[in-house]
Amino acid sequence: MTNSKYRIALDAFGGDYAPLNEINGAYQLLNDSYHQDVDLYLVGHQQNIRNVIKEQGYNPDLIKYINAEERVNMDDDPSEVLKKKKNSSIYVGISKLKEGEVDAFVSAGNTGAMLAVSTMILGRINGVSRPTIGSFFPTITDYPVLVLDVGATVDLKPRYLYEYAVMGSIYVEKMLNINRPKIGLLNVGEEETKGTDQIKETYNILKNSSLNFIGNVEGRDIFSANADVIVCDGFVGNIVLKFAESFLTILKSKLKQYSEKNIINKLKTGLVVPILKDILQQFDYQSYGGVPLLGVNGVSIIGHGKSTPLAIKNMLIRAKEIIQKDINKQIEKTLTNLEN
Amino acid sequence: MTNSKYRIALDAFGGDYAPLNEINGAYQLLNDSYHQDVDLYLVGHQQNIRNVIKEQGYNPDLIKYINAEERVNMDDDPSEVLKKKKNSSIYVGISKLKEGEVDAFVSAGNTGAMLAVSTMILGRINGVSRPTIGSFFPTITDYPVLVLDVGATVDLKPRYLYEYAVMGSIYVEKMLNINRPKIGLLNVGEEETKGTDQIKETYNILKNSSLNFIGNVEGRDIFSANADVIVCDGFVGNIVLKFAESFLTILKSKLKQYSEKNIINKLKTGLVVPILKDILQQFDYQSYGGVPLLGVNGVSIIGHGKSTPLAIKNMLIRAKEIIQKDINKQIEKTLTNLEN
Repeated sequence: MTNSKYRIALDAFGGDYAPLNEINGAYQLLNDSYHQDVDLYLVGHQQNIRNVIKEQGYNPDLIKYINAEERVNMDDDPSEVLKKKKNSSIYVGISKLKEGEVDAFVSAGNTGAMLAVSTMILGRINGVSRPTIGSFFPTITDYPVLVLDVGATVDLKPRYLYEYAVMGSIYVEKMLNINRPKIGLLNVGEEETKGTDQIKETYNILKNSSLNFIGNVEGRDIFSANADVIVCDGFVGNIVLKFAESFLTILKSKLKQYSEKNIINKLKTGLVVPILKDILQQFDYQSYGGVPLLGVNGVSIIGHGKSTPLAIKNMLIRAKEIIQKDINKQIEKTLTNLEN
Repeated sequence: MTNSKYRIALDAFGGDYAPLNEINGAYQLLNDSYHQDVDLYLVGHQQNIRNVIKEQGYNPDLIKYINAEERVNMDDDPSEVLKKKKNSSIYVGISKLKEGEVDAFVSAGNTGAMLAVSTMILGRINGVSRPTIGSFFPTITDYPVLVLDVGATVDLKPRYLYEYAVMGSIYVEKMLNINRPKIGLLNVGEEETKGTDQIKETYNILKNSSLNFIGNVEGRDIFSANADVIVCDGFVGNIVLKFAESFLTILKSKLKQYSEKNIINKLKTGLVVPILKDILQQFDYQSYGGVPLLGVNGVSIIGHGKSTPLAIKNMLIRAKEIIQKDINKQIEKTLTNLEN
């Protein structure tokens, strides 16, 4: 950092409800006495953002602005964004991060574009072959489990998975204060001999590393909190993540069908819904406040498109903590130590 | 068939509750007037089985027996079973199927052993490179979706996935009476350009086939019933299946934690549980009554270790239907037609 405050830029064009949720999240942080050490920048069309801020009843002068007139849409092809959307909020925000004008960039926008632009402009941390995106899953305990990669790289190479394990271990240790996080390898059985040749090779690398490797974990172990960090290739991880997110959808749909059968069912459902909401709030993937793109040379955080103001606020806090705890330096130190 | 009845052998040493659930399921079928065309054989230690049948109040002479003194345990290594457990119920039952003494073999036992013994003794259907195990998943509609492979082969080859699609299509068309089932390829995005090189190659093969291919489906689409059959490699499929099976577990665990907070919550939970049970019965993977090992040259059906008597009965009915509808002949015809 070049000044005494944490300078965090937030993509005002990011999520599905931008800029409203972004603005409300930002002002929730600004009004939080614990976070007066943050200088917030909104990246987007300055005049428009100022107008919305005023409409929401906030003082637009409490925030700083980085002007960017273009918006990356959720379905924009990342490679097209790299080539043709250099005035977009994501491109401009990441560029300012690269130039050292801010310390972190946070967006609830297009994940693929965030990954591509961050990787190209910021580059990789020394020792990292592939940046990775993780996602926290709820478990039967109060601690979530970090699964990575969930879609940055679809190809599996044992070296990649080892690096994900190192990055995930450092992230969870520092951010959740878990000492020597337990690392699991997602596989089709517990035995060392299970899985493809590349998975077996990964098993060997992890076993011989200084990580706290607990062996293979199966699909049924994700929720059971055997591991604090689970590594897999981005193909498997992405399918598992999207599948998990659809669990609430089918539950709601089945509940609706049940409710529509008759009036008694309708009354019963009215009782069930608030209880389920209470129980399943941990399934709300918002609450963990976004995940960093681990392995890029800068603090770049991606949130869900449907991020609420609270989720946006949590992402900003997460960004501050990652800067404070110097996660990227730890990753570089570990991976250039030539453990393997 | 060599006689007028469907001769179905059931592994009495199979599931976690064997032989009790097997015996009760078998007698449920014997007492069902729709299924008087079945000749049932129990495979296991004849005298012991007869004794349990009597204890349950049934007439042991209504059933036939194939004696086998050994039991395959759930954690037995399949290759060891092939070498050293030739007197086991699975080995003996499959051998009798091969010899033509029965028309189908059904077991709720060790899946890996069933796969290995069936593949070795029965061989593959002409045109099939790899046998596959499918699993039905519930959807938001009343129809389930068949996902395959869920663990028979962890390696992905485009040709394997094409064959799974053909076998799944025939199975669903014949067994669920769905005309030209919609086939989806499990992938990380909808676009044709998504996924690994092998997935893209699979996409091309499916697109140019005569199957009713609807393109890529994502993790979130499994429950949404876009597709009737979803193909993937056995590594991904196995992880997704076991993960899905754990949804109920975490739901129960969270409900328990909620209930234990205070007496009001406890009372509320009492209301919720029966409703959830009602809603989620489709998540009970038993109800589909086991899945065939598709691609082996004989009717060999695998059920869940925790199969209830009803699930056992359903598996036996499924076996009868597969024989009736001559699924294997259809598979051979299609795959030797050199469509690709």
